[in-house]
Amino acid sequence: MPRPAAPAVTIRRWTAGRWSDAPDAVVNEEPLQLLLNGEKLAVVMRTPGHDVELALGLLFAEGIVRSKSEVSKLRVSAEADEAEKAIVVEPAFVESNQVDIVLAGRAHRKPERSMLATSACGVCGAQVIEDLRRDLAPLPDGDRIDPAILPGLVDKLREGQGVFERTGGLHAAGLFDHGGGLVHLREDVGRHNAVDKVVGRLLLDGKLPAAAHLLVVSGRAGYEIVQKTITAGIPLLAAVGAPSSLAVAMGREFNQTLIGFLRGDRFNVYSGASRLLR
Amino acid sequence: MPRPAAPAVTIRRWTAGRWSDAPDAVVNEEPLQLLLNGEKLAVVMRTPGHDVELALGLLFAEGIVRSKSEVSKLRVSAEADEAEKAIVVEPAFVESNQVDIVLAGRAHRKPERSMLATSACGVCGAQVIEDLRRDLAPLPDGDRIDPAILPGLVDKLREGQGVFERTGGLHAAGLFDHGGGLVHLREDVGRHNAVDKVVGRLLLDGKLPAAAHLLVVSGRAGYEIVQKTITAGIPLLAAVGAPSSLAVAMGREFNQTLIGFLRGDRFNVYSGASRLLR
Repeated sequence: MPRPAAPAVTIRRWTAGRWSDAPDAVVNEEPLQLLLNGEKLAVVMRTPGHDVELALGLLFAEGIVRSKSEVSKLRVSAEADEAEKAIVVEPAFVESNQVDIVLAGRAHRKPERSMLATSACGVCGAQVIEDLRRDLAPLPDGDRIDPAILPGLVDKLREGQGVFERTGGLHAAGLFDHGGGLVHLREDVGRHNAVDKVVGRLLLDGKLPAAAHLLVVSGRAGYEIVQKTITAGIPLLAAVGAPSSLAVAMGREFNQTLIGFLRGDRFNVYSGASRLLR
Repeated sequence: MPRPAAPAVTIRRWTAGRWSDAPDAVVNEEPLQLLLNGEKLAVVMRTPGHDVELALGLLFAEGIVRSKSEVSKLRVSAEADEAEKAIVVEPAFVESNQVDIVLAGRAHRKPERSMLATSACGVCGAQVIEDLRRDLAPLPDGDRIDPAILPGLVDKLREGQGVFERTGGLHAAGLFDHGGGLVHLREDVGRHNAVDKVVGRLLLDGKLPAAAHLLVVSGRAGYEIVQKTITAGIPLLAAVGAPSSLAVAMGREFNQTLIGFLRGDRFNVYSGASRLLR
């Protein structure tokens, strides 16, 4: 059965100091296990749908497959949509969230490395969270945070972003204290890198877990950003952009306060709303 | 010597049908070779600066390093900035764009996989391009394209993006013909995935290289997006967001027309301007 592209969630919304409950939809993010000749090659976080295209496009970019004629079998899971099933060469019988590309000859280029995009071993969102439970405990409740400080933090982030103003090309991650004071600002062409730089700074300073801080990111909040911040013990993550379904599920599982669409005097709370003062 | 965060380039700018030459600055993107105990662990595309933080933050997120006390040596390249050098434990003597983290004991978790984020083997932008030259030829000049079709393509992309409207969380890649007609639209929580899906579709249809098409992406244009589209033979790539320095260098090397900031009736041309009609 095809999964929804935009699962429905119930969120808490802050608008100019007023709270409300609201229905919302978040973009679906799930891992895809990519197999080459029946062997595990990579796990890619993606929005389900067009999985065969994704697998083939990725293998083409890596120089492993050059044309369709090199593919002898395509295997997709039973819940793939009809368009996916129409292009498979053999009936579907792999597990959920898997695509297996079987080549007619040998691959042009033996992959020298796993292309694994995340540390997830599982092949569905629930399994990803199950795997993370081995390494991570839910974040402690800790101090409650005043929601009124949040709307001002994006401006503080932008004020600190000199290079962004000139190039429009840098993502930012800003670490703040619970009073809204900026502690560290890091920028990078890669949004995960900006978060890694902040966490690396905290590690150098012996300040992990960072229970007395919160992090604001200029982009969206997907699996990796949430995983990195929960690992660093940061109780509140606020993104200027949208969260993914997996980000929301992780925030709820590990008691992180996850905020999205932090813009102007508004924001949405997807998990851990009890950490915010009413 | 620290490298500039925003290298200067000269671009062609289109504004409501009028061309001009203009200076511009693009965000710097270069590969960082990450070493663990002297062995190659990963190459990460990043904006130079705070490289030690980036390396430590990444290793922390992966569960390989848990505190600074586990690090016995930190080695960075001679051109690292003063802040980087101040935190190294041993004098800098690795090559450019490298960080070596030497642990006091064994790593908590043996990395089960290479974290290599790209297929680049080199450790500087020029080396990345040199490596790509082994696999890729410059794109042929082919047909010239009317620049007047470009401003309308972003609206066509957004009109096709049903899910984005509801969640704000999806990246889009739209393949158009040279007359501006939409051929394929793919969306994904990951922007590289959206491009892979389009290329995978072209591969299934036997339409690679895609010399008669152009691709519009909703986000920024960095190394990976440009590498994937050049590999697919797409002569023109237009991004709603900013390009990186490495994207511009690759566009120039491989004769791809690279357009950034495609917004309203304006856009910037970073490479391959001769493919556009005057």
